[in-house]
Amino acid sequence: MENFKAYNPTTLHFGKGVIDNLAATVKPLGRKVLLVYGKGSVKRSGLYDKVMEQLIKAGAEVFEFGGIKPNPTVTDVDKAAALGREKGVDSIVAVGGGSVIDSAKIISITIPVAHSAWKFYEYKARPVKALPLIAVLTLAATGTEMNPFAVLQNEETGHKDGYGSDLCFPRHSFLDPEVTYTVPRDYTAYGIADLIAHCLENYFGAGECTLSDRFINAIIADAMEWGPKLMNNLNGYDERAAIMYDATMALNLMTGYGKARGDWGVHALGHVLSLLYDVPHGASLSIMFPAWMKHHSEKAASRILKLGKDLFGVTGIDETISRFEQFFTLIGSPVRLSQVGIGDDKFEEIVRAMIHSKAEGNHFKLGEEDYRALLSLAK
Amino acid sequence: MENFKAYNPTTLHFGKGVIDNLAATVKPLGRKVLLVYGKGSVKRSGLYDKVMEQLIKAGAEVFEFGGIKPNPTVTDVDKAAALGREKGVDSIVAVGGGSVIDSAKIISITIPVAHSAWKFYEYKARPVKALPLIAVLTLAATGTEMNPFAVLQNEETGHKDGYGSDLCFPRHSFLDPEVTYTVPRDYTAYGIADLIAHCLENYFGAGECTLSDRFINAIIADAMEWGPKLMNNLNGYDERAAIMYDATMALNLMTGYGKARGDWGVHALGHVLSLLYDVPHGASLSIMFPAWMKHHSEKAASRILKLGKDLFGVTGIDETISRFEQFFTLIGSPVRLSQVGIGDDKFEEIVRAMIHSKAEGNHFKLGEEDYRALLSLAK
Repeated sequence: MENFKAYNPTTLHFGKGVIDNLAATVKPLGRKVLLVYGKGSVKRSGLYDKVMEQLIKAGAEVFEFGGIKPNPTVTDVDKAAALGREKGVDSIVAVGGGSVIDSAKIISITIPVAHSAWKFYEYKARPVKALPLIAVLTLAATGTEMNPFAVLQNEETGHKDGYGSDLCFPRHSFLDPEVTYTVPRDYTAYGIADLIAHCLENYFGAGECTLSDRFINAIIADAMEWGPKLMNNLNGYDERAAIMYDATMALNLMTGYGKARGDWGVHALGHVLSLLYDVPHGASLSIMFPAWMKHHSEKAASRILKLGKDLFGVTGIDETISRFEQFFTLIGSPVRLSQVGIGDDKFEEIVRAMIHSKAEGNHFKLGEEDYRALLSLAK
Repeated sequence: MENFKAYNPTTLHFGKGVIDNLAATVKPLGRKVLLVYGKGSVKRSGLYDKVMEQLIKAGAEVFEFGGIKPNPTVTDVDKAAALGREKGVDSIVAVGGGSVIDSAKIISITIPVAHSAWKFYEYKARPVKALPLIAVLTLAATGTEMNPFAVLQNEETGHKDGYGSDLCFPRHSFLDPEVTYTVPRDYTAYGIADLIAHCLENYFGAGECTLSDRFINAIIADAMEWGPKLMNNLNGYDERAAIMYDATMALNLMTGYGKARGDWGVHALGHVLSLLYDVPHGASLSIMFPAWMKHHSEKAASRILKLGKDLFGVTGIDETISRFEQFFTLIGSPVRLSQVGIGDDKFEEIVRAMIHSKAEGNHFKLGEEDYRALLSLAK
């Protein structure tokens, strides 16, 4: 087992009606609140009104920044930070999925400084302070609600990158499974694919910790039990709750304790597909992970075999990979590029973008020839 | 799944040599440190010197309170708190196992007040403030290093009780598996029994959460993989590390998320045995848990069957319980009262003490007739 530090200060409020505790949570943090949200689905669902009611109850003066994009940009983060800075806000309330909460994390460290948020991503600046962030989650997928990571894209440079700092954990996260009833079928499936991919990235990372492997198996198995039930019953509370909790635990750092690092190569590949063709994040992962396992079926043989044995009780590499493909297909997340309209004619463009964004992974390093092979396996 | 709040602010520093970071951790917390430890084993092992070196490096003025007993008492806690109060200490460094760290947690909330710590246990006072506590763990067993619980005994009233408050989490915990090399064979085994019992208490609690069940199975399976290896190689780093991490995760609250509450009946029974006859805590649990499962083989049938299937791939209740007995026996933790020198002649005394201490459990409630049946099954 590798040495590790475990630190996770986020308070998770999980369950039916937890948003009723938002006012009491926000109030001690100060009077001025920056409210961050996305393209308007929170208004249509009525969640915006519920949150506003709580903020009014807390006696807050609210400054709004809506319109965060599904693939969130540093431009929006900088604009929101400028607003927060100008108004002198005391805390941030972010209502949305990964894109909104990721943006809010970076807004929380950008408000106290005078430069663009992208400087953090380029490691030209280090955050020294963060405003307290309260997240109200609307999508079970990224795990952002209980981790310090944020993915942003820079439209100018054409990069989509992740960033993490201990300052970026949400102080509180509110997870009411009922809030996710309105997530459409396809994005529900992509969320499940996303959480499983998070488990796999740590599973295929460097270093060995048997307990972390067991936690990873536990989360994947739970998602594989509840995922199909949820797809058959999109308004089922138990189903939504199980998947929401799975997604949180899949990327709250725990599955990496005692290991050196996760791989994250598949995420790097997926980010390129999202950047170029707006492929939803989870869909890009359910396409690329089976291809990645096939491509690494020799190098990662023992790990794939162990996974197949522990999860499915099967003994072959092909059989293990095929079980994942079957599962993704069953819930309705794509497993081939052709299913999202990407043909061979795009491959050279994709390879160039992968080279440009250094999509390589931490453990099983990828390069140009790997990209071509992977795309061919995923086509 | 039940609603839940997840909150765990402890920073865990895990691995070889982590104590080298103690100075940097203590320094920002203030100059005056109360150093709490037990009966002297930390001096014999050399750990005391290492910790002192770090405290000197941090420029700390150190006030010592040694001599915490294996079954720690409120008298010692009150004395240590009086010392800390008198000297105006800024933080507490606790070096030891469960007894020392549990004591230090209660010292940390008792220093800021003027009354005995027992008032917290009687719910006649609520803590409002705690001094920051840094734990240096010497024993893999209780999980105290990452939870808010503390068990103390009151020699005057003859009670042994648990107490918990969000203020009682250690701020930092240092876990170096090498530090546990000096734990003797028997206490190493009791620690393993203890951590497995913690998993089982939550498993047999009220409410259902499939992911928590899976985490519980993961930890028990990990301890059952590494426990026998450790007993064959007491100075094995990987073995000590695995069990130390298992013990932390077994009782850092996680296995209870989404469930209503743990049962904790077996712990209540075990506390009585420790109080009356100084039976080591873990040993009392490996004796009482199989008896408890036998006694509840009808009421808890479906849960025991599920456990047997998931953990051992067996289908019977008796077979499942027998697997636990075999495992405890294999590592050298007792499974019968006779093995710790307690005969039938003591049963009425034990029953009276169980009634006196209200050893009943939260979910599968116990009463006088149950005590008699349980003792008979455990004899």
